[in-house]
Amino acid sequence: MPTIKILAERELREIVPLDLVAVQCVERAFHSLATNTVAMPPILRLDISEHRGEVDVKTAYVHGLDGFAVKISPGFFDNPKVGLPSTSGLMVLLSSKTGLLQALLLDNGYLTNVRTAAAGAVAARYLTRKDASVAAILGAGIQARLQLQALTLVRPIREARIWARNASQAEALARELSRELGIPVTAFAKAIEAVAGSDIIVTTTPADQPILSAAWLEPGQHVTAIGSDAEHKNEVEPTAIVRADLYVADSLRQTRTLGELHHAIAAGIVAFDASFPELGEIIDGTKMGRLSQKQTDLTGTGIRDTAIASLALERAEAAGAGSSFES
Amino acid sequence: MPTIKILAERELREIVPLDLVAVQCVERAFHSLATNTVAMPPILRLDISEHRGEVDVKTAYVHGLDGFAVKISPGFFDNPKVGLPSTSGLMVLLSSKTGLLQALLLDNGYLTNVRTAAAGAVAARYLTRKDASVAAILGAGIQARLQLQALTLVRPIREARIWARNASQAEALARELSRELGIPVTAFAKAIEAVAGSDIIVTTTPADQPILSAAWLEPGQHVTAIGSDAEHKNEVEPTAIVRADLYVADSLRQTRTLGELHHAIAAGIVAFDASFPELGEIIDGTKMGRLSQKQTDLTGTGIRDTAIASLALERAEAAGAGSSFES
Repeated sequence: MPTIKILAERELREIVPLDLVAVQCVERAFHSLATNTVAMPPILRLDISEHRGEVDVKTAYVHGLDGFAVKISPGFFDNPKVGLPSTSGLMVLLSSKTGLLQALLLDNGYLTNVRTAAAGAVAARYLTRKDASVAAILGAGIQARLQLQALTLVRPIREARIWARNASQAEALARELSRELGIPVTAFAKAIEAVAGSDIIVTTTPADQPILSAAWLEPGQHVTAIGSDAEHKNEVEPTAIVRADLYVADSLRQTRTLGELHHAIAAGIVAFDASFPELGEIIDGTKMGRLSQKQTDLTGTGIRDTAIASLALERAEAAGAGSSFES
Repeated sequence: MPTIKILAERELREIVPLDLVAVQCVERAFHSLATNTVAMPPILRLDISEHRGEVDVKTAYVHGLDGFAVKISPGFFDNPKVGLPSTSGLMVLLSSKTGLLQALLLDNGYLTNVRTAAAGAVAARYLTRKDASVAAILGAGIQARLQLQALTLVRPIREARIWARNASQAEALARELSRELGIPVTAFAKAIEAVAGSDIIVTTTPADQPILSAAWLEPGQHVTAIGSDAEHKNEVEPTAIVRADLYVADSLRQTRTLGELHHAIAAGIVAFDASFPELGEIIDGTKMGRLSQKQTDLTGTGIRDTAIASLALERAEAAGAGSSFES
């Protein structure tokens, strides 16, 4: 009977905080996707519409790594009504040599939150000006908080703005983040006003209608859209992609069908086979990133899960954290 | 922090043996697939060819059930060289109302073995003569053993024959099964001789070239092919499908792309859109099953995993088995 390691959320929060190591880990994952032999099958998705639920399963194997993760991510959007978080889930780490179970990371979605925020920081590091200092965050959920926190790791953010459909939630988050980050964070009543004059705009909502208009965008701004991971989700007006000097995908195969790009294709503004760089190629330096107005489209890839799960196991072993279990 | 239940393989072996309850559980799953609202996305498959490895992830949700399973099934075919089993894996049970993790069934593939064998018994129950008494099993692995054991639960098997490419493995298995089942079980050197005069033939190998020729088949025989769950696998000569009076799929969508049917379509013998009954429809009585020579094509469906995992959790709770863990 193989012995496996089980890590609970509280342990994972301790050993894998959102820090520069996590950002570098995710950066390497993007780079691998562009330059290494990666097997990353399409996402498996199960819909349970009667409970407003969906489950995504993602996986990826990077040639040469000892392990790979299978991540199960449920999102059940009526949960808050009964006092439960919408998202949960776990990561399963398997040996890439034998397929045997190595570890169960019972993170309730925590590691996904970290790797998603870290991906925003990677996009900012490669696609925004070095002196970018004003950030506008659209949305007021967990990713709104973490994306801003991640930006402060890689750019000298001195001012932040929050807009959300729910104004009181935006205000509460602005107060908290002001205190935690030690910079002025202000809630704005209108998204257009939050966006005006910002250097970096991050959209973090599950919107299915654009919350960011193309006409609002200014030269020198960078937009990172992280909300869309399904066909029907859409945060940024599709014409923004063609107005931008540069559009960058996390995975072009995914953004064509699940991301913001999908809506530009559906609207007939962009051809399905139009070629755009992926973030990993920008990191690799094979495609130029430093242009004026830019948009990054992050749909979430299994390779980032494999990367963060491997980091978690490595640190758990170094720290002697977790429980052992004979399966 | 939610509390979940963790069940180890040794506990699952005790509470979910291969018995008539397991067969009935899988029978209900087939019936649901034909008659109920079932969400069953295509299988997610990751190949790690440098280690002769593959991982399948399957899931299915049956309308009205409290939970659903996500099953992760690795198959690494060089494992026996280092003394490890080729297949392993686990099932993850989630609430269909909230998506929250309910239980981890660390079965190392055991429940898959049970539900696959039970599916063979369901096919036999609905598609073979009530007095079918001679079984020929092609292959000498774990499914060869379990398929024969499952047949004895539903038909008055009084004689069994084993053929395998590895003759000494076939002989060893025949000796063991003779003793365990209390009926004569004989190893045959030639598959054609094992097949001649049998009532039920079950093919249980990972063959990628047919091991059962169409010309060998006789009126009144039933073939259950369980080995093919991937494009390249093929146990039965494709012309057997058109020579049979009835061909039955576990899931027509799957057998068209992964099963024996796939090879008949690829050979141009059967049209891609040709319609065949599914086993659930036969169980439901909406399509006639009792014809002369028949073939059942089982590729493995997520709904059977959800069914057996739900049974396991139900029994674990009744028996107070398993460990609790705070995630």
